[in-house]
Amino acid sequence: MHKIRLLEECITEFSRLPGIGRKSAARLSMHLLKIKKEDVLRLADKITLFRENIIICSECGGLSEDEICPICSDPKRDRRTLLVVEEAKDLFAIEQTGCYNGVYHVLGGKISPLEGIGPDKLRIRELTEKVKAGGVSEVIIATNPDLDGETTAVYLFKLLKDYSAAVTKLASGLALGTHIEYADELTVLRAIEGRREMY
Amino acid sequence: MHKIRLLEECITEFSRLPGIGRKSAARLSMHLLKIKKEDVLRLADKITLFRENIIICSECGGLSEDEICPICSDPKRDRRTLLVVEEAKDLFAIEQTGCYNGVYHVLGGKISPLEGIGPDKLRIRELTEKVKAGGVSEVIIATNPDLDGETTAVYLFKLLKDYSAAVTKLASGLALGTHIEYADELTVLRAIEGRREMY
Repeated sequence: MHKIRLLEECITEFSRLPGIGRKSAARLSMHLLKIKKEDVLRLADKITLFRENIIICSECGGLSEDEICPICSDPKRDRRTLLVVEEAKDLFAIEQTGCYNGVYHVLGGKISPLEGIGPDKLRIRELTEKVKAGGVSEVIIATNPDLDGETTAVYLFKLLKDYSAAVTKLASGLALGTHIEYADELTVLRAIEGRREMY
Repeated sequence: MHKIRLLEECITEFSRLPGIGRKSAARLSMHLLKIKKEDVLRLADKITLFRENIIICSECGGLSEDEICPICSDPKRDRRTLLVVEEAKDLFAIEQTGCYNGVYHVLGGKISPLEGIGPDKLRIRELTEKVKAGGVSEVIIATNPDLDGETTAVYLFKLLKDYSAAVTKLASGLALGTHIEYADELTVLRAIEGRREMY
């Protein structure tokens, strides 16, 4: 059986992406031949540009093109409210609702003893320092409602409860086991509105 | 709501691809940040290389890196048997079974009055010339078993029946309405084995 090397390589690359099997990868590859050459070049270009130029905002730990991200550098955002998420994708899900006007703190993951991720591997020290410095009246913990996420939430609560800021967490509007990233906007909105003080 | 331009552009490009919605596109984009920079560069590179360097084999009309594709230039393939498919992707599905040792002829589509695709827009003249020239003992018509595919098969049969080659078509192993590209290998294999003379 003869293979076209360039096609095989293209299929292999596509099928490395999450959720894309070999048949989908082949379909995507064949699709590239149907669209204009410049559209393929633009796809390749935007992928590369994104990967090469995106950096981590030195304030919140979210994604940014500059040293400070657009949210952290926006004077209209309320800096007294700090919403803590695991990953930048969770930040986007919250932003999508359009109802949150505070700032964020991205942990860069969650505490996971099974995967050997301890508090020291996350941006927890930076969070404590922000709260310690004062000026924060509320810390909203928005980790995912799964085992590791809950563990992280409890850990953060214990760490922050003695400072002046109130520590709240998202309401149970989010069903257990789901991820913020995939929740519909209304569910995320309800969870923000129904956030409650941690026990 | 603040958007990260590079991320937005990356999501937009991914979501232009077939079967990829905005949420999947966002997930793919975020995945790019988790993998190595060189893996992203290789993805972009292979996509571009494939689109820029793949050409149409001047013999069969299938995909190739050179003037003549590896199948057409293979002396071990039986040039007396000619299998006619709509698109190159169908050729790959047949090759995948590993049971066909003849050569191919890719039409580049199918006759579709609704979409304004007449026989003159397909590589049908090239097919007739091959059969007219002699040396072909069997033409296997392997168009997809849908309305336009069947129309194309009947059209080709009428065109070719007066020459010396037998004209056959794939057996009804393929369920009506499905596409060769997505059929499992066994179904494709059965369809090749059970091919019959056209009425």
